[in-house]
Amino acid sequence: MLTKKRYSVKDMVLWTRKETFFYLFYAGVITVLYKVFGFTFLNVPWTPVALIGTAVAFMIGFQNNSAYGRIWEARKIWGAIVNTSRTWGMKVQDMVSNAHAPNPVSESVIKEEKRILVYRHVAWMTALRYAMRTRKSWETQHTSQTNREWRDMIHIPEEVSSLDDNLKLYLSDEERHYVMSKPNKQTALLYLQSAHIRKLKDVGLIWEFAFLELENVLEELFTHQGKSERIKNFPYPRQYASLSLYLTRVFALLLPFGLIPEFADIGQSMTDSFFLIGKYFIWVAVPFCAVVSWAFHTMERMARVGENPFEGTSNDVPISTISRGIEIDMRQMLDEDESIIPSQFPEEKHVQM
Amino acid sequence: MLTKKRYSVKDMVLWTRKETFFYLFYAGVITVLYKVFGFTFLNVPWTPVALIGTAVAFMIGFQNNSAYGRIWEARKIWGAIVNTSRTWGMKVQDMVSNAHAPNPVSESVIKEEKRILVYRHVAWMTALRYAMRTRKSWETQHTSQTNREWRDMIHIPEEVSSLDDNLKLYLSDEERHYVMSKPNKQTALLYLQSAHIRKLKDVGLIWEFAFLELENVLEELFTHQGKSERIKNFPYPRQYASLSLYLTRVFALLLPFGLIPEFADIGQSMTDSFFLIGKYFIWVAVPFCAVVSWAFHTMERMARVGENPFEGTSNDVPISTISRGIEIDMRQMLDEDESIIPSQFPEEKHVQM
Amino acid sequence: MLTKKRYSVKDMVLWTRKETFFYLFYAGVITVLYKVFGFTFLNVPWTPVALIGTAVAFMIGFQNNSAYGRIWEARKIWGAIVNTSRTWGMKVQDMVSNAHAPNPVSESVIKEEKRILVYRHVAWMTALRYAMRTRKSWETQHTSQTNREWRDMIHIPEEVSSLDDNLKLYLSDEERHYVMSKPNKQTALLYLQSAHIRKLKDVGLIWEFAFLELENVLEELFTHQGKSERIKNFPYPRQYASLSLYLTRVFALLLPFGLIPEFADIGQSMTDSFFLIGKYFIWVAVPFCAVVSWAFHTMERMARVGENPFEGTSNDVPISTISRGIEIDMRQMLDEDESIIPSQFPEEKHVQM
Amino acid sequence: MLTKKRYSVKDMVLWTRKETFFYLFYAGVITVLYKVFGFTFLNVPWTPVALIGTAVAFMIGFQNNSAYGRIWEARKIWGAIVNTSRTWGMKVQDMVSNAHAPNPVSESVIKEEKRILVYRHVAWMTALRYAMRTRKSWETQHTSQTNREWRDMIHIPEEVSSLDDNLKLYLSDEERHYVMSKPNKQTALLYLQSAHIRKLKDVGLIWEFAFLELENVLEELFTHQGKSERIKNFPYPRQYASLSLYLTRVFALLLPFGLIPEFADIGQSMTDSFFLIGKYFIWVAVPFCAVVSWAFHTMERMARVGENPFEGTSNDVPISTISRGIEIDMRQMLDEDESIIPSQFPEEKHVQM
Amino acid sequence: MLTKKRYSVKDMVLWTRKETFFYLFYAGVITVLYKVFGFTFLNVPWTPVALIGTAVAFMIGFQNNSAYGRIWEARKIWGAIVNTSRTWGMKVQDMVSNAHAPNPVSESVIKEEKRILVYRHVAWMTALRYAMRTRKSWETQHTSQTNREWRDMIHIPEEVSSLDDNLKLYLSDEERHYVMSKPNKQTALLYLQSAHIRKLKDVGLIWEFAFLELENVLEELFTHQGKSERIKNFPYPRQYASLSLYLTRVFALLLPFGLIPEFADIGQSMTDSFFLIGKYFIWVAVPFCAVVSWAFHTMERMARVGENPFEGTSNDVPISTISRGIEIDMRQMLDEDESIIPSQFPEEKHVQM
Repeated sequence: MLTKKRYSVKDMVLWTRKETFFYLFYAGVITVLYKVFGFTFLNVPWTPVALIGTAVAFMIGFQNNSAYGRIWEARKIWGAIVNTSRTWGMKVQDMVSNAHAPNPVSESVIKEEKRILVYRHVAWMTALRYAMRTRKSWETQHTSQTNREWRDMIHIPEEVSSLDDNLKLYLSDEERHYVMSKPNKQTALLYLQSAHIRKLKDVGLIWEFAFLELENVLEELFTHQGKSERIKNFPYPRQYASLSLYLTRVFALLLPFGLIPEFADIGQSMTDSFFLIGKYFIWVAVPFCAVVSWAFHTMERMARVGENPFEGTSNDVPISTISRGIEIDMRQMLDEDESIIPSQFPEEKHVQM
Repeated sequence: MLTKKRYSVKDMVLWTRKETFFYLFYAGVITVLYKVFGFTFLNVPWTPVALIGTAVAFMIGFQNNSAYGRIWEARKIWGAIVNTSRTWGMKVQDMVSNAHAPNPVSESVIKEEKRILVYRHVAWMTALRYAMRTRKSWETQHTSQTNREWRDMIHIPEEVSSLDDNLKLYLSDEERHYVMSKPNKQTALLYLQSAHIRKLKDVGLIWEFAFLELENVLEELFTHQGKSERIKNFPYPRQYASLSLYLTRVFALLLPFGLIPEFADIGQSMTDSFFLIGKYFIWVAVPFCAVVSWAFHTMERMARVGENPFEGTSNDVPISTISRGIEIDMRQMLDEDESIIPSQFPEEKHVQM
Repeated sequence: MLTKKRYSVKDMVLWTRKETFFYLFYAGVITVLYKVFGFTFLNVPWTPVALIGTAVAFMIGFQNNSAYGRIWEARKIWGAIVNTSRTWGMKVQDMVSNAHAPNPVSESVIKEEKRILVYRHVAWMTALRYAMRTRKSWETQHTSQTNREWRDMIHIPEEVSSLDDNLKLYLSDEERHYVMSKPNKQTALLYLQSAHIRKLKDVGLIWEFAFLELENVLEELFTHQGKSERIKNFPYPRQYASLSLYLTRVFALLLPFGLIPEFADIGQSMTDSFFLIGKYFIWVAVPFCAVVSWAFHTMERMARVGENPFEGTSNDVPISTISRGIEIDMRQMLDEDESIIPSQFPEEKHVQM
Repeated sequence: MLTKKRYSVKDMVLWTRKETFFYLFYAGVITVLYKVFGFTFLNVPWTPVALIGTAVAFMIGFQNNSAYGRIWEARKIWGAIVNTSRTWGMKVQDMVSNAHAPNPVSESVIKEEKRILVYRHVAWMTALRYAMRTRKSWETQHTSQTNREWRDMIHIPEEVSSLDDNLKLYLSDEERHYVMSKPNKQTALLYLQSAHIRKLKDVGLIWEFAFLELENVLEELFTHQGKSERIKNFPYPRQYASLSLYLTRVFALLLPFGLIPEFADIGQSMTDSFFLIGKYFIWVAVPFCAVVSWAFHTMERMARVGENPFEGTSNDVPISTISRGIEIDMRQMLDEDESIIPSQFPEEKHVQM
Repeated sequence: MLTKKRYSVKDMVLWTRKETFFYLFYAGVITVLYKVFGFTFLNVPWTPVALIGTAVAFMIGFQNNSAYGRIWEARKIWGAIVNTSRTWGMKVQDMVSNAHAPNPVSESVIKEEKRILVYRHVAWMTALRYAMRTRKSWETQHTSQTNREWRDMIHIPEEVSSLDDNLKLYLSDEERHYVMSKPNKQTALLYLQSAHIRKLKDVGLIWEFAFLELENVLEELFTHQGKSERIKNFPYPRQYASLSLYLTRVFALLLPFGLIPEFADIGQSMTDSFFLIGKYFIWVAVPFCAVVSWAFHTMERMARVGENPFEGTSNDVPISTISRGIEIDMRQMLDEDESIIPSQFPEEKHVQM
């Protein structure tokens, strides 16, 4: 997530330079053919091209809307993870106790149980964010060079260190090996949580009705996890993505044929007063076509890069930061020493990951 | 669900070749009449045609939006099935126990009860996905040849083996016969689940309050099932679908009458410099009309194929895969041997079913 | 609800024949005045007419969207009734029992209580669907002849037999008389359900906590009922409906004045080559105007017929079928003999009511 | 809420007569200047004016959409109040009882307690609807004369009698004085309900767990109340409302300058055949400009009057009727004599308040 | 939040004066070049510029829609805080009692406990609103002078006094120091609430099941808090904001090149009748271009200022007022003396903060 006011003009120009050059080149070629070779038959009526343009604007508008919907939904889900995490922290804090225990245990034992429940929760969030940053077959933003340049400036925490290393901080070795052996690690962790609180219930450290409440918190976490996985595993329907792309391209291909003759006419009409300028006026069509194509192309590309909010781009939902923020929060509430609590991931190039 | 970046140009061209040829042919006929037979009276003003085009773009835009809404809602429902399935697994795991049993039973009996509850859940998902893939009277994508070609390349698991065969893996014979005798098999299965946990409650293997919780999980499953059936049983309102189709066709029918004269004019104006090209320039109208009609037709067709997310096309919500994924998940949590757990359905042609 | 692929061209033509004739006639009159009487001053600039057309397309687009929203919401509510009905069946089945009864009763008594609870539920659904099919002062589709033709081909179950006759099948005479004496019969039935389960709770046939659960199911039924009544009792705001209608008409009224002169010009320009055709070309404006007006009018009319999803048209949400489906479902689960379970309402002309 | 099919043409014409006259006058003045004074330089190109028109149509479209959203949400909230009111009635009916009372009381005492709980609920609804009909500083529809004419034809129940008088029917004098002394009367009433059921719980007339259920019903009522207050207290953001209004006006101001010259041209072109008509043809621009301006203005005004669904216009959500309907419902369920139950508020001019 | 009917024309003119002058100046320069220097080659065809205009209107329309969505969601969240606060007040009032206390305490002790729970809740709301008014790196409205002028006329309560001073009114010194030492003060306060009710449960002043209910109210507060923080911490995606801005600017830059030649033509055509006016007519293009640019720019700017509903502008969601309103409400319900209850924040310049 970009955290500054906006992308600078320079950012935009650099990011879109490839298509800009392509459109300049393409319009240039048509203009050369039209003007230099005199192929003035490279000419289609402008108004149907504009009609296609309107229809394309419509399609891309909806696509951008959907992409925004996906980003916003993803952010909502991770916001809900924040809320339920805090609830988990609070309920664990105040529902694990000797109040109903037939054989009360010492305060330090209770504290340790709470610590384990909180650490395992952090492990779950960690496993989930690693799962979100894996690559899907339709996530191909990194194949474009201008996207890769952005990627190279920022460091995705999930690519810097491995999940296994991270889990060492939160789980016993036994549990860690068990979890790493399962394909869906986050699910395994929630099952472990449930087994743990059940054990605590069986020895009376959790009241039976509090146990039901805590199970329902775990149910909620399953829901958030599943929603996050749904967005990861189900792309914006490829048929719509394909259609937008191809329609935009059809429009961009037809554009110079519709515009260059109009510039030629204008140039023609000014040859009396400005002979030289009139003669070369048609070349203004080149940047002009490029601008129009660029506008449509960039709208379409914006929709494309926004589709997958966990792909590892600078426009991602910042799940590493959110997850780490919660970890800090929960560990502070355990009254841990500040020195052992990790610090937040730094922003690079104003990008929060 | 297509899992690659996008449909290739070749895919699109092949898939839409029939209408492409038709539009080329239609525009060709009008051009022949106009040019060869000299029927230059085949001419209507372009701007009202463009106005219809704008209105049609509007209608189709909304239809695509609705179709996307249906797909996304279907995916959400199946995502919720995933979440509630995991919750069911977790709660069964930790709520079936001897804790409140007046006459405790052996661990293996408890384990077997859990297994039955989980397997019957898989049976429910299986029955549901078979129900989703049956054919409705308004699901007619398979009648189009170019759609059928796609269908033939992929194998819909529900068409490869029968429900009865599948249920053998999860249910006792008695239960299976009972279930197969009911019209709505998935409902019957949930009733069986409820009767089962009630029996367990009566003998004390499920605490009475845990029984209420589990009943509420079943209630949720009824909700997901009902939502999925709702999308299956209630098509996008046919009146809107009809209107979009007919308006698109009216637009495509009028288009050449509006465009060919414009090309004729342009051709006329260039006969001085390029006699031959000017003479034949009108024929450029043929591909051009086809491109515009193709764009509108394809947008409309995209909406049409997207309407029914369980119809068995390459754009379906991948319910077989989701369902099988959960089965694998739940059985791994039962600590079953990997060798008896089925593997995921393979992707064919990058299509996940 | 239409259950076939789409309305046929014939259906559409017949259904809209009145306005088609009107628009042909209207455009004809203007053309006669323009051409025969030579009133060529019947002429307004086309572009502002097109701008109104664009604005109207906008308004109608939103209206169709809202109408679709209402249909879809209505369908969701009745889908939720399906789900909660199944839940009611399941919970009644497994929560009415001797488990907590101080004085256990025979199984047949329990079975009878369950039967009454299920039959009264069917009575509730029946009362609700009759309430939904009554006529509201803004439901006037039946006043249009072409709509009435459709109505006459199908039989609305709620108009074929009376509610009182239907309730005889599900309620004791005493209860039936009581219910029929209340203005809101469905509400009275839910109050009866609540009083019944309370009585069962008092004698111990329902556990006190299960009683709370069942009360909450009744609460949910109140919610679904209220939502369905809300859509019935609150039309699409009449001010918006009025505005769309009048704007569409203003547009259709202005249209020929904008278009006929354009056809006149085209005709003029071809008199050299085709004298006769050029002379009569202006008459092409008549069908052309009618097509454009028809397109806008039909979009507006589609929105209008879709506004009220329980009005008794072929586009209604099929509440009779849904309700009967649930009845069959629930009675099969009571293991009733198939011979006494009613069959589904038949589809007529591919319309499910 | 209007309950007839639509506003009549006469209603619309009368309601918008002021702006119609203004636009006629304005276009008339420009035409006089153009034609009579010969200021033909009052001329701007039409196409950019049309572009502004398109953008304005967009803005107003969204505004109408939002206004509809507010109306619909308001209606949903009051629908939810209906549902929760019925639930309250049902639960009070079946949860206040001697079942857990250590010292059982007579049936008539219980009945009286129920009556008080139901009457106080009606008092709450009454207080809420009075609160909804107070005037906010941004509710200024009554300042327009044509709106006031509509207002004068209908009688808003909340303006006919005072809240204090109404509350006399439902509350003891002591409670009424207490409630009237609080700024937010509806909140005070719910606090009283809670204190009452708590007292009943303390003496055992409400089971402790039923008490929790009833508290949750009160929580829901707080939610509905708060949502209704939110819509009342938070207008459609004034910056958007201002922008739509000013853009519409800018468009209407520019319109004649763009259109009159076009009519002048058309008139010019017909002077040969119809000298007199051609000479005066430009005057057709006056009604034509007025029609276009009227269309845009009325769309914008529709959005404006729809913004505040509790403002006391004929398009309001009919909260008086809804509230009274529930009162009748609930008192019938108390088996009160029909003679003491109030009747529904009458519709006036087909407007339900 | 502005509470009057709308921004006055004067407000709008002043607020947008900078861009108005800029656009006047820019169009003036081009016109000078075109007319005075005779650079008539500063000329591009108008229709593609209009197409860009249409696409931009689309983008800005969606952006405004999203901005409105954010404002409305923020208002909903704070409305929900109102509701849950009242619920908290009600439940604390009626669930803290001697009913289950093994060692009953005096009424004044109970009253004091309730007071603490309510005051701490007010402290939570206060901490939350201070958190909402801190500045984010993408909140840059205050950097624009015309925005700052508005800011200077109103006083944001959170900038007038410090959080620490405010908390003194609601918390003991010990708790205050503890809370102020935590980064997320509102979270810490809810943890304290939970610990407090747990303590009350342990001594029997809260029934164990009521404790679970109250924990769930705290869970809800965590949810509202988290949602509010989500909107604060996650801006409207900067890539979309950047794109809208740059597209609007591209459009505004191209506009004069498309329009001035059209005015030049019109001026040309009137030189015969009005020589002087015709000669200078082109200068009308300057205000006209400025009007069109102003319309688009202001739409875009409206979207921009609406993005962040807690930024401290006159269009903010009025969280100070809402929060103070609830405080007054809750303290009145504690039957505190009016003299110690604070009064509502005053409106300044019709702006509620």
